[in-house]
Amino acid sequence: MPRPNPRPMTYEVLATADPAGGTRARLGRLTVPHGVIDTPQFMPVGTNATVKALDPDDLDEVGASIILANTYHLYLRPGHERIQRLGGLHQFMGWDRPILTDSGGYQVVSLADARVVTDEGATFRSHIDGALHHLTPEIAIEAQEALGPDIAVAFDHPVYPSSPRAEVEDAMERTHRWAERSLAAHRRPDQALFGIIQGGVDPEFRERSTRFIAGLPFDGICIGGLAGDETPVERATALDVVMPILEGDPRPRYLMGLGSPADLLEAVRLGADLFDSVLPARVARNGQLWIPGGRLNVRNGAFLDDSRPVQEDCPCRLCRRFSRAYLAHLFRAKELLAYRLATCHNLTFTLDFMARIRTALRAGAFPESLASLREHAGRLSRDEVAVEPA
Amino acid sequence: MPRPNPRPMTYEVLATADPAGGTRARLGRLTVPHGVIDTPQFMPVGTNATVKALDPDDLDEVGASIILANTYHLYLRPGHERIQRLGGLHQFMGWDRPILTDSGGYQVVSLADARVVTDEGATFRSHIDGALHHLTPEIAIEAQEALGPDIAVAFDHPVYPSSPRAEVEDAMERTHRWAERSLAAHRRPDQALFGIIQGGVDPEFRERSTRFIAGLPFDGICIGGLAGDETPVERATALDVVMPILEGDPRPRYLMGLGSPADLLEAVRLGADLFDSVLPARVARNGQLWIPGGRLNVRNGAFLDDSRPVQEDCPCRLCRRFSRAYLAHLFRAKELLAYRLATCHNLTFTLDFMARIRTALRAGAFPESLASLREHAGRLSRDEVAVEPA
Repeated sequence: MPRPNPRPMTYEVLATADPAGGTRARLGRLTVPHGVIDTPQFMPVGTNATVKALDPDDLDEVGASIILANTYHLYLRPGHERIQRLGGLHQFMGWDRPILTDSGGYQVVSLADARVVTDEGATFRSHIDGALHHLTPEIAIEAQEALGPDIAVAFDHPVYPSSPRAEVEDAMERTHRWAERSLAAHRRPDQALFGIIQGGVDPEFRERSTRFIAGLPFDGICIGGLAGDETPVERATALDVVMPILEGDPRPRYLMGLGSPADLLEAVRLGADLFDSVLPARVARNGQLWIPGGRLNVRNGAFLDDSRPVQEDCPCRLCRRFSRAYLAHLFRAKELLAYRLATCHNLTFTLDFMARIRTALRAGAFPESLASLREHAGRLSRDEVAVEPA
Repeated sequence: MPRPNPRPMTYEVLATADPAGGTRARLGRLTVPHGVIDTPQFMPVGTNATVKALDPDDLDEVGASIILANTYHLYLRPGHERIQRLGGLHQFMGWDRPILTDSGGYQVVSLADARVVTDEGATFRSHIDGALHHLTPEIAIEAQEALGPDIAVAFDHPVYPSSPRAEVEDAMERTHRWAERSLAAHRRPDQALFGIIQGGVDPEFRERSTRFIAGLPFDGICIGGLAGDETPVERATALDVVMPILEGDPRPRYLMGLGSPADLLEAVRLGADLFDSVLPARVARNGQLWIPGGRLNVRNGAFLDDSRPVQEDCPCRLCRRFSRAYLAHLFRAKELLAYRLATCHNLTFTLDFMARIRTALRAGAFPESLASLREHAGRLSRDEVAVEPA
């Protein structure tokens, strides 16, 4: 099933970590119509065609080179056809650099009400107004072609990793059939299409799904159905099944839905190139600021008198100019500026962390750098002031 | 009662409109420790040491040259002494240009619960946590000296313009005694102090209050107790009493609490130099965008398909990059970016409008420009799409 058009993207693997170091980490460069993305890379999530509280200049400033937008949300509101009429997603949201849209499969399962999934597609009620909707692989592709991101994603049927085995298998098989239908439906020559591996945490299913999806002419490979309720060990086990099969595959690997800096680092070590998550922004809006080796909860009253920046050497909009005391005050007064400044910081921290990983890979020093990167990511924190569930 | 220190500010009147044109409008330049303010000028309000949804770079971009912060709010949270320990208000909020603080009198009357006002001062419960507080002229000055704005304001006892005559007189007399106590208490040599005229809409009281306050060695004259529930005619009548008495007085005149562009223009015409109001930002957060000759309510569904900018020739962050459709979408999705972009626009519109007034004054063409300025301000709108109470 060859793609009807020349690929609208290239991916070069520039360096791989020494396998003797027990790692499959790799450095790469992904080129899509709107720009170049150095990998490993993290994509901030702009659910409703806006990364919450930030504008495009803020995104530039935090170092974003690609963002993710949600097909499910934009399909429902304001509508993909409306965005198409308005010139497409890039123009609509004022962001002229790369965009990836997910397919909506995950949101149908996690957000929508009264959903019924059949082989044909998913019928569900909008979480916004209860209206009845129907998504199929063909409609999800049509919506993404209308939105016009650089990278679209095949429609899939994710399930929670802890779901019963038969359910995981059933959803995986459906995901495979939908992958083929997504490929067949996709026409837009200036848009890449990624396929999604499912299969839960069962090694047999993961292997089957990886072989099936990798056997299709997608431009990139998403690893779905993780970053859910699995344990870190279950996730690592699943990735240890997936990645050896993809060894030598020239396509980028996108682990969907991760995560904390520590999670990202482990997944890079196991061979993932691309990531997305609402986590850094969501915890920021809750007052949790990521710093090297730990985190600050600025809702803690002690910070009201702390004249230091959140992070001494951080170049972000928050740390350049404001104190912990000011941010703590803004959160207590529920001032809108708090959410923007905190989000700028956590995304700067996350994207800087990915840059540190790339620097180690470029220097051929990734295995040796793992300990200090883990320390930076916050697992071994001694400075931790307040820990909240992420 | 001469001030103990040399004045920390200068005010030059650069031009006055032709009195034959029936106007007392004037062009001026106010110099305070943190910068120069061209008048007539509008001060965005940063209640909690932040102009809601904006950061200092946004304030620069919208053209703010001075902002107002509220002593009452900062006294209660995070506390003026805390801000002083953190280096003062300028450093706390990252704004190194001029700041004026009001005295808290207005908020005690309009926000606080269970207030008891005696000659000594005002006892009230915090609107935040119900805690009992006491403000006197001396404490209000102490708080403002701790905060460290360029301009502080005497503690006053405002009443609604529609209050019973005896109440207006009583509060006015108290405001006069508190003005003297505020002057006596004020020590900070790098801070100007403005006094407040009260007296409601009664011409006799307004005259008495103007003569009394103007007779004290304040650095500037606030006109308080208007921008309340009075009619535009009552306001104009009160200003027509105040301004002739201040004729030839070398000090700036600050009409507190106005307002819409049309209100500002009329008050400039009657002789006011400085203004503040939460109005442009508050209506922006409600989805009302000011444009020449009218306003748009972007919550109106028609805008979801409107690819034009809110205002064609506007240099603001919203209009430079985004469509009405995008802003309408952000408001519907309750996205935080909506509030920032809309606020940037309305403040840009307001501050640009003040610049247009100054241009007319500088050109000696204010009376001739009044009709087109009024048209721009929106009174004679034919483009008005939706009007909401301001």
